[in-house]
Amino acid sequence: MADVGDKIKLVTKQATYEGILMPRPEFLGKGYTIIKLVSGYNISIDDKKIEKIEVVEKLSKKEAKSKTVKKNSKLPTISILHTGGTIASKVDYRTGGVNSTFSPSELVGLFPELADIANIDSELIANMWSDDFRFAHLKMIAKTIEKHVKKGSDGIIIGMGTDNLAVAAAGLAFVLEESPVPVIFVGAQRSSDRPSTDAAMNLICAAEFIVNTDFTGVAVCMHSGADDTLCSILPATKTKKMHTSRRDAFKPVNDTEIALVDYKTRKVEQIKKDISKGKKLVIKSDFEEKVGLLKISINMFPEQFEFYKGWKGLVIEGTGLGQAPGQVPNEECNIHKKIYPAIKSVIDSGCVVVMTSNCINGRVNMNVYDKGRDLQELGIIPGEDMLTDTAFVKLSWLLANEKNPKELVRKNLRGEINERILQ
Amino acid sequence: MADVGDKIKLVTKQATYEGILMPRPEFLGKGYTIIKLVSGYNISIDDKKIEKIEVVEKLSKKEAKSKTVKKNSKLPTISILHTGGTIASKVDYRTGGVNSTFSPSELVGLFPELADIANIDSELIANMWSDDFRFAHLKMIAKTIEKHVKKGSDGIIIGMGTDNLAVAAAGLAFVLEESPVPVIFVGAQRSSDRPSTDAAMNLICAAEFIVNTDFTGVAVCMHSGADDTLCSILPATKTKKMHTSRRDAFKPVNDTEIALVDYKTRKVEQIKKDISKGKKLVIKSDFEEKVGLLKISINMFPEQFEFYKGWKGLVIEGTGLGQAPGQVPNEECNIHKKIYPAIKSVIDSGCVVVMTSNCINGRVNMNVYDKGRDLQELGIIPGEDMLTDTAFVKLSWLLANEKNPKELVRKNLRGEINERILQ
Repeated sequence: MADVGDKIKLVTKQATYEGILMPRPEFLGKGYTIIKLVSGYNISIDDKKIEKIEVVEKLSKKEAKSKTVKKNSKLPTISILHTGGTIASKVDYRTGGVNSTFSPSELVGLFPELADIANIDSELIANMWSDDFRFAHLKMIAKTIEKHVKKGSDGIIIGMGTDNLAVAAAGLAFVLEESPVPVIFVGAQRSSDRPSTDAAMNLICAAEFIVNTDFTGVAVCMHSGADDTLCSILPATKTKKMHTSRRDAFKPVNDTEIALVDYKTRKVEQIKKDISKGKKLVIKSDFEEKVGLLKISINMFPEQFEFYKGWKGLVIEGTGLGQAPGQVPNEECNIHKKIYPAIKSVIDSGCVVVMTSNCINGRVNMNVYDKGRDLQELGIIPGEDMLTDTAFVKLSWLLANEKNPKELVRKNLRGEINERILQ
Repeated sequence: MADVGDKIKLVTKQATYEGILMPRPEFLGKGYTIIKLVSGYNISIDDKKIEKIEVVEKLSKKEAKSKTVKKNSKLPTISILHTGGTIASKVDYRTGGVNSTFSPSELVGLFPELADIANIDSELIANMWSDDFRFAHLKMIAKTIEKHVKKGSDGIIIGMGTDNLAVAAAGLAFVLEESPVPVIFVGAQRSSDRPSTDAAMNLICAAEFIVNTDFTGVAVCMHSGADDTLCSILPATKTKKMHTSRRDAFKPVNDTEIALVDYKTRKVEQIKKDISKGKKLVIKSDFEEKVGLLKISINMFPEQFEFYKGWKGLVIEGTGLGQAPGQVPNEECNIHKKIYPAIKSVIDSGCVVVMTSNCINGRVNMNVYDKGRDLQELGIIPGEDMLTDTAFVKLSWLLANEKNPKELVRKNLRGEINERILQ
């Protein structure tokens, strides 16, 4: 009986495949078997077409072997820290539980190419869906990073679910005021049109980027395109998940990639220069909890704003250049009369309010129209060209760590604001 | 003294320009004069470089002439209905007031090409910023459309500010259950890199599309690219403003353009077939007012959901495939225990809750993960591949007009849901 991770030979009428038996992604449903071929590609085979599966080598034996294998002193050490999500699905699959162990040898068993790039250390921080992510988890991640850096790790990979991966990366970019090592967030997307998981390629490209560049700081590594050619190394505070299911869902917004990694040749094309940030580890992992996010829609009511009275921070995702309703265009709509006073009451309660745009691309400019100037006079701070989620974690971080958070909202601290207007 | 709309001759050291004196876009600041050349392009000239401005023909005289010009019975009639925004900025500029008149002859005076395409009728519905848009305005627009259709108009152009232009178009698509004429929303974006307004080209392309195709229904006409080559005719329920300032900010999401209009050749390339929808005018312009929009962030609190208890509808813009926080990944985060019950209390209060995705592209799929299934069991309805703003106006419209709104959320009524998954 073959288990996930075993090296197997699979025979169908058409062909014989040799490779590692992979976990079955949940979305595929039952009835498919997935093998990772020596080429690194995964293929899925309809169970009905399988004539025979032969175990060539048990994972347990490989693990035993790898446990006896000494670290290669010529290679750097990468720590893979998992928080759950699709990329750690093997864990779920094998034990069915949520508190699974996740050993270095298991990882190398599933992604053997990693052993050629670095010595792999690993730790399971949590086993959660990323949509349950809270600020508390950034503290846990920072503590674990500290432990591994002290142990001598040369680079960190954080495995995580994709829903809040970019948000978490942005948050950690603020937490790590300085970092002597690169910290790369890696996830795996579900793809409805092909069964192959992108976890292997994303992990391997992240590892190659870590060992082949001087980058220190926080970034994201995910597929660049729909095929398995390139991975993008993306700036932590300028990246957004732009598609629900595509593997190349993560895109830089108002910015460019830091680098591209070619999966076949393993070449790293560095796009940004000056990517080394800091020499020591400086962690500031506090976040203000009472920060809200309010997306503007048409037909709003003043109480939707007033709700945030007494909160410490609020990001408003406005329209266009940074607008909110509040004028009285005709008598039917005099409810608008009460919206600016509602916003003012929130600000007067001590809440710091930042404006971003639901256009995603481009920059907020609240000096173009009178209305924007009015909103600034109420005390709203323009969020420049920040992503809404980045503005949200930055505001919470500033409120917990800085004496003058209001003045720092518009100042670039971690690459979250580009001075130049990018069109 | 030259006024806006006058035909002038402007002399600098380098050259002499002849054209129509245009209103100065607010963002330019003072010190620039803008002329619309015969080619249709606008140029801006530094006031310091101007040696002489000569009036060739006063607008008032042209108006007098155009008032005596009879309608060309061979041409169809297009009604341009304005609601304000950048595209109607001439109005603001000339009178300084908000209740300006906006006559057909003035329009033709500023955009003389229009007279070659159609007889132009016009009406100023409102003079407002589109970010102040409410459902009440859709009723006003629908009434005015009805009036002009009864008068024999062959097509309607709605001029509007861009911030909520796509949302308003989506809303009107639901209002017009059937329409014998095309209704095209046209706006003008601010461009920081060039002073020319895009109003003329967007208007002219919209008019060409109206007279040269069988399209009936609601669409948007805006620049396709950064240059002045093409305009896109975009599907009302599938279009989003994706940039704060670019002229080509409007993009189809999970869909394609209906058509492209070449500004130079005036050729219409129809991309979608079967674009004629309806023969008579059927208006359903009621909307449920108490519908909210809640965008998911990390670190949420149950009271942010509970706020919507007693409301009639709520769209949650979730993460990824349609997720919301609500599990208890570790003890520090047991606040999550209360989020699913909070969502349930909202639904139990009679509120219809629809889930969309903050990824913008792709489709919500709440059957992939257990969490999504749990949310569906609470009563959340997946919003398929609808834009958040479209789901919002659709939900409000369904609640006001249909007996079984819940069942219709996932049914395609106005092109807002594509059956096929587009990647």
